Amino acid sequence: MTETIPFKEWQKLNLRIGKILDVKDHPNAEKLYLLDVDLGTEKRTLVAGLKQYYKPEELKGKQCVIFTNLEPATIRGIKSEGMILAAVSKDKSKVILISPEKEVDLGSKVE
Amino acid sequence: MTETIPFKEWQKLNLRIGKILDVKDHPNAEKLYLLDVDLGTEKRTLVAGLKQYYKPEELKGKQCVIFTNLEPATIRGIKSEGMILAAVSKDKSKVILISPEKEVDLGSKVE
Repeated sequence: MTETIPFKEWQKLNLRIGKILDVKDHPNAEKLYLLDVDLGTEKRTLVAGLKQYYKPEELKGKQCVIFTNLEPATIRGIKSEGMILAAVSKDKSKVILISPEKEVDLGSKVE
Repeated sequence: MTETIPFKEWQKLNLRIGKILDVKDHPNAEKLYLLDVDLGTEKRTLVAGLKQYYKPEELKGKQCVIFTNLEPATIRGIKSEGMILAAVSKDKSKVILISPEKEVDLGSKVE
């Protein structure tokens, strides 16, 4: 059984709306992109495993949800300043980006 | 400064794709809805503060993201079996549902 999470633990997470500005290939990893995202008050670069599922032009300009205070990780030599959220189907064949269903101010908090 | 969250803490959260089946008024609270959602393998009822922002017909049929293992809370006498995620603008004037940007299997995990 999955453990339940108290609301105060949930509140520690900082999930914010960002916009994907640019998409580049990760220089050292075939399946990874580098995403430049705008969070309203700041820009960040993330490493994301979306290359098998999205073309750069399908991502650019899209609003997305960024987990901004995940412990930073260096992935194949590049620091990822957060994580982009996506839905992964049970057989892992589909990966679909999570977005606000209408445009909203960048930096809006997901709660 | 916001505390950073280790990846293993993030992994304890169970965020899943659901579909809103039905929307009813909460019997004891003016601003709250009761949402029936389908998570693929199960159905649940949630209490959600979306009434000022969405009409029932704007919600019905939509895919959404449900935090399924939040500690259950009883809100004005009704048990909420999870929380639906939405983006809230900084001045709190806009509340926009979070959805997969294309339809995906119900129960898909957000990661």
